[in-house]
Amino acid sequence: MDALVYGVRRELPAQFSEFTSIVNAVAISIDLHQGHLSADPDCPCPAPRAREVVDGVNRFHAAARHLGVPVIHVRSTLRPGGIDDVKGIPSAWRMTFPLHVGEIPNADAHAIAGSRWTEFVTEVAPEDLIIDNKKRLSAFYPTDLDFLLRNLGARRVILTGCMADCCVLNTAFDASNLGYRVTVLSDLVRGTDAPLEAAALAMISLHLGVVTDSDTLLAEWQGAR
Amino acid sequence: MDALVYGVRRELPAQFSEFTSIVNAVAISIDLHQGHLSADPDCPCPAPRAREVVDGVNRFHAAARHLGVPVIHVRSTLRPGGIDDVKGIPSAWRMTFPLHVGEIPNADAHAIAGSRWTEFVTEVAPEDLIIDNKKRLSAFYPTDLDFLLRNLGARRVILTGCMADCCVLNTAFDASNLGYRVTVLSDLVRGTDAPLEAAALAMISLHLGVVTDSDTLLAEWQGAR
Amino acid sequence: MDALVYGVRRELPAQFSEFTSIVNAVAISIDLHQGHLSADPDCPCPAPRAREVVDGVNRFHAAARHLGVPVIHVRSTLRPGGIDDVKGIPSAWRMTFPLHVGEIPNADAHAIAGSRWTEFVTEVAPEDLIIDNKKRLSAFYPTDLDFLLRNLGARRVILTGCMADCCVLNTAFDASNLGYRVTVLSDLVRGTDAPLEAAALAMISLHLGVVTDSDTLLAEWQGAR
Amino acid sequence: MDALVYGVRRELPAQFSEFTSIVNAVAISIDLHQGHLSADPDCPCPAPRAREVVDGVNRFHAAARHLGVPVIHVRSTLRPGGIDDVKGIPSAWRMTFPLHVGEIPNADAHAIAGSRWTEFVTEVAPEDLIIDNKKRLSAFYPTDLDFLLRNLGARRVILTGCMADCCVLNTAFDASNLGYRVTVLSDLVRGTDAPLEAAALAMISLHLGVVTDSDTLLAEWQGAR
Repeated sequence: MDALVYGVRRELPAQFSEFTSIVNAVAISIDLHQGHLSADPDCPCPAPRAREVVDGVNRFHAAARHLGVPVIHVRSTLRPGGIDDVKGIPSAWRMTFPLHVGEIPNADAHAIAGSRWTEFVTEVAPEDLIIDNKKRLSAFYPTDLDFLLRNLGARRVILTGCMADCCVLNTAFDASNLGYRVTVLSDLVRGTDAPLEAAALAMISLHLGVVTDSDTLLAEWQGAR
Repeated sequence: MDALVYGVRRELPAQFSEFTSIVNAVAISIDLHQGHLSADPDCPCPAPRAREVVDGVNRFHAAARHLGVPVIHVRSTLRPGGIDDVKGIPSAWRMTFPLHVGEIPNADAHAIAGSRWTEFVTEVAPEDLIIDNKKRLSAFYPTDLDFLLRNLGARRVILTGCMADCCVLNTAFDASNLGYRVTVLSDLVRGTDAPLEAAALAMISLHLGVVTDSDTLLAEWQGAR
Repeated sequence: MDALVYGVRRELPAQFSEFTSIVNAVAISIDLHQGHLSADPDCPCPAPRAREVVDGVNRFHAAARHLGVPVIHVRSTLRPGGIDDVKGIPSAWRMTFPLHVGEIPNADAHAIAGSRWTEFVTEVAPEDLIIDNKKRLSAFYPTDLDFLLRNLGARRVILTGCMADCCVLNTAFDASNLGYRVTVLSDLVRGTDAPLEAAALAMISLHLGVVTDSDTLLAEWQGAR
Repeated sequence: MDALVYGVRRELPAQFSEFTSIVNAVAISIDLHQGHLSADPDCPCPAPRAREVVDGVNRFHAAARHLGVPVIHVRSTLRPGGIDDVKGIPSAWRMTFPLHVGEIPNADAHAIAGSRWTEFVTEVAPEDLIIDNKKRLSAFYPTDLDFLLRNLGARRVILTGCMADCCVLNTAFDASNLGYRVTVLSDLVRGTDAPLEAAALAMISLHLGVVTDSDTLLAEWQGAR
């Protein structure tokens, strides 16, 4: 199977089926919600490049469901009132990211539970699973994602979503540390910008798992069936 | 105080003392041991670029101790016999990293408890603290680092060591998620190569905390005393 | 201040203000929902003795709010479909508890998100905080309770609810391990039966923290104001 | 197979092989070290009743090894200098336990790394595994026990050691929450006193898993081979 190793497309040795096998695989989509993807000027934490992956993620999820692979949608939510963040120990990005992108006017509305900013943009099927309590960068913190993966008997995770150099990368680190085999789909993640996205995928390919595209992975999975 | 924001040196706004204050700050040095730094051809997990930071880390630690900042040295150790890794669920890097750097002949000896590969290359003072049970990429997993930081009353961590795009970055993510304020010293970390090192520091500066150099931080700390 | 030490009422030495001080204290009420307290024969996990504490918990919470102490309500919820439990790795109690109490007819309905069994019986004020994703016995697993307590700056927790020898005791262990000072209110917890309740409170008083009653704690708090 | 359900010996239904099967079982012995078991008046945290189980634990471990069941020995260790406990956030038991047993003269020496108090009293075979960084009550905190169990592919844990109503009970709670099936051997654990030991075993049998004796479990295991 082909993969991107530090940005170069290569054939993977056979033993990488350890990562790419469909057996006990779970698809995890990270933070494809209105709070990042909305084109509204009030969007509290804009990640506009990630709008490009919504259709592809929907297609990948449809194929995954068809093949019996569970689909997990992860989203950030914060308690109304602010204690989880701006009135508690504020997230670091609230101070650091504006140094690069300028002030984010509606940032305090980010991820507030019950607000429209937590609505998924991607399609959620009735049988899909939702992780609803991501409150920082990793999909594992402080959520029940590891608990859910244990109950699913998961051994492999396939990551999509945004941002490649932030929440996706952090989730890939945590999943790999916990012993899950990680694949990240290069066509279905987006980063802060193209260079940091490429760098995140390079890091993942060197240290954490397999970087490939959804067509390649699905072809592999369909061949295995 | 000056910092690197996405690689550009800039003056930080005053409120970034939230990150750079010496109050409740702790210095954490990651994996500066023989298993990464040895020039021996048997070195089980070579990170040769990081040899350049040893002297600087020693100087920074001396200054930190003088100012009353606790110093923590983190190292990977794995149980003899292999159950923590090659005979259990092998670390992902054992399969992925050789795709880029070629076969690593003595990789199975990496971090084995009691071997010379776990010896620190940096100076360890009697009053320093050691985290001895890092077994994957983050200094927090599966270690007692968060426990130790709670007992120290730590609010801020200053990270040095290797590799910038792997264990240092993963540790920065975890520390930030847990609510600690993160500073990474650009002169005292090294990555797989210069581009990935720069990318890791850019990601840290955008999403996680402050990237600056040791002289700048020490000048800030000394000014505050 | 008086406390119960292994069931004996005694005056605590002054240094136990470390546990009982109102400063940075948080009240945590565990699983006082319909799934345990309903008198309906369909109640999926009956803990009928705990009905006795509802009024007292409401009074204690009202006093706590008046004194500025945050109130957290914890409840178990499980994803519809069963993956969190009966179709994943089933909770041990589903096999063990019926050995003692006989078959529990509607146990599979326990804690299903969105069902009436997750409704709180105690009063929830708008400013109260909710932990919604307890899925096993401890209020810390796999929830964001530790995250929330860090954001609150909590140092002390006061536990009420059910059952004293199960979820309350497990929560007391975890809170104590994490460095929070634990007080359990003997009049506002109930166990499986009176002997196990007394034993749980004895264990807490020997190993984990302070066991006292709500009037005594409130008098202490009011005296401190 | 027979078990103790709330203190009453009963035949377990067949499906309890889910708990008692030898497949993917791991034996875990908790804190059978000199710091609890020494008869020396300087013993820093005396648990004298647990001396009675040393020979039985040795016999059980020998049989387990013979049957291919991994044996893990857990011990508490604290960094010299005190930061993990008395000079950090002191363990609750240091204040609460003396209310019951009186002052413990040498308590500050408890579990100090490198001291004789951390020496195992039970026999440790070369192939056994050691958890060395227990610092509070649970064998899971802040240790790598869950990491080790994942690498072992463990599904079931059999607990022995001391004290039944404290560290063993806390470990049983954590193991059960994490999805491991728990068996506690009533002849190979000891509590603070006989009533609290019996209560802890009753709680375990109702909420957490199987309580049986080592001869019964070994007969079951040997029959299965």
